[in-house]
Amino acid sequence: MEVKQEETRRTEGKRVEGKTIFAMSSSAVPVCRAGSHETVTFVTKDCFDNQFTEEGDVLDSLNWDCINPATGPVYVEGAMPGDVLKVKIEDIRVASWGTMAAIPDNGVLGDCVSRGTVKRIPVRDGVAWFNQDIGIPCAPMIGVIGVAPEKGEIPCGEPGSHGGNMDNTKIKAGATLYLPVFHEGALLAMGDVHACMGDGEIMVTGLEIPAEVTVTLEVLKGISIDNPMLEDGEACYTIASHENVETAVYTAVKAMTDILMRELGMSLEDAGMLLSAMGNLQFCQVVDPKRTVRMEMKKTVLKKLF
Amino acid sequence: MEVKQEETRRTEGKRVEGKTIFAMSSSAVPVCRAGSHETVTFVTKDCFDNQFTEEGDVLDSLNWDCINPATGPVYVEGAMPGDVLKVKIEDIRVASWGTMAAIPDNGVLGDCVSRGTVKRIPVRDGVAWFNQDIGIPCAPMIGVIGVAPEKGEIPCGEPGSHGGNMDNTKIKAGATLYLPVFHEGALLAMGDVHACMGDGEIMVTGLEIPAEVTVTLEVLKGISIDNPMLEDGEACYTIASHENVETAVYTAVKAMTDILMRELGMSLEDAGMLLSAMGNLQFCQVVDPKRTVRMEMKKTVLKKLF
Repeated sequence: MEVKQEETRRTEGKRVEGKTIFAMSSSAVPVCRAGSHETVTFVTKDCFDNQFTEEGDVLDSLNWDCINPATGPVYVEGAMPGDVLKVKIEDIRVASWGTMAAIPDNGVLGDCVSRGTVKRIPVRDGVAWFNQDIGIPCAPMIGVIGVAPEKGEIPCGEPGSHGGNMDNTKIKAGATLYLPVFHEGALLAMGDVHACMGDGEIMVTGLEIPAEVTVTLEVLKGISIDNPMLEDGEACYTIASHENVETAVYTAVKAMTDILMRELGMSLEDAGMLLSAMGNLQFCQVVDPKRTVRMEMKKTVLKKLF
Repeated sequence: MEVKQEETRRTEGKRVEGKTIFAMSSSAVPVCRAGSHETVTFVTKDCFDNQFTEEGDVLDSLNWDCINPATGPVYVEGAMPGDVLKVKIEDIRVASWGTMAAIPDNGVLGDCVSRGTVKRIPVRDGVAWFNQDIGIPCAPMIGVIGVAPEKGEIPCGEPGSHGGNMDNTKIKAGATLYLPVFHEGALLAMGDVHACMGDGEIMVTGLEIPAEVTVTLEVLKGISIDNPMLEDGEACYTIASHENVETAVYTAVKAMTDILMRELGMSLEDAGMLLSAMGNLQFCQVVDPKRTVRMEMKKTVLKKLF
């Protein structure tokens, strides 16, 4: 038992806990430093800053100044502007209950929501029990993950080139996220874990839940990206966010086309046709201040992003 | 051998062939009549009206007046305005080669395409061979399928409440499509089959291919829908098209919410949260005059649309 705990601690690496930010910025003070290749565990609060703690909590009691806390930031040694921060998501462990909400004027159905609602949802053995009797298989994912943006500060509830609130269901255990580095140390922070979420996140919340996220970090030199990218066992993905979903689509599609041209030695026309034949354009979310989409290309054809 | 042919003919039912329309309209003259519960096979031309027939064909030779032909229409006996036409897609058999194109100023990457390109792609044993060496598994689907629209005529290249050019990868063998009926006989037509296509259809063409599509028709009385819906073995889907993708999203999400409220006896708030937790918003296409999206809900929770 002792040995197992020791092993677990070693696997989870350094623990980052208790310090959160509500905006990503180069002026955020790092909680700690981590080396390239180091494994770190982020203890994250839910998107409501863990304010809902009991059955019967109501939306009116929510302090809206404390939404979308991200744990961190962590200063990654050696990360310099123009580098890429590779974040391998080793594991996401979620609490035994989470929260969802229906919020008037928020989300796709905001105009239909007449009554602010908070719902407490238990999670048992990897299944979330919605209204006690509807079992939803959990697929824990990270809603907010990003670095200090190029300019100014960006609230953690907003996605962008620095990552942020991308609400991408593919950012889960086993996947590897690539983030552009804009400032020395990158300043990685994360939070807003969902035990499960549908693509689109149409009501603005997934199953919001406190969690522990274990990642392994690596600084990549000599390559550069404009926006986050992702890969998992099945596919490679480009990601883009913009106020206008069609602009986000263009950015994600163009980025994947550029990768196909480089990695497969194709013309733009061929790369575009190949994407049109088998690349899947997918929604991440349509409810944050900017919309986020991803362009998927299966690894059967595109082995790697770089 | 004789027997087998006879059996195949019986399974494929009535054959609709040789007559196409380029716009869906209540004034289109029916090719033939089919009864409710009847099986019909539509012989479809590709979206280029089968104009490209040889390796080396060039885009400049294309007659743009003959784009997106739909075979039909078929007058479905008993179908009256306000009914629903159920179209079970039994089988889609595609030709041994298809065509893709890169067309300047068309599709997501239209501004990057400097050189109009036509590509002939062979299909062998269910695999499409892009540039000879990239094998893409075929998943034949119907790009254009619809009925006479409520008002006027709508070019077959355009999607809408009547169906049309939805370019929905889920409209494939084994799926059942539900279309609203606006006029007596419904006037069903289809074409634009793709041997494969990625969600989004980012370059405006999938792998365009001549095909034979076998469907079984049924007229449903006593239920009414505003837009197409779909179900397959895995999930139920609402579908919506609009010039503004966000408006299409709203329509598809609201329609699925209404279904959850009715079938599961839920409040709007609960239905919305359930969708947010496990319903997937998905792109069909972002390149036709109207954009098309679908809202997916797994059958583990929603057994049926009606």
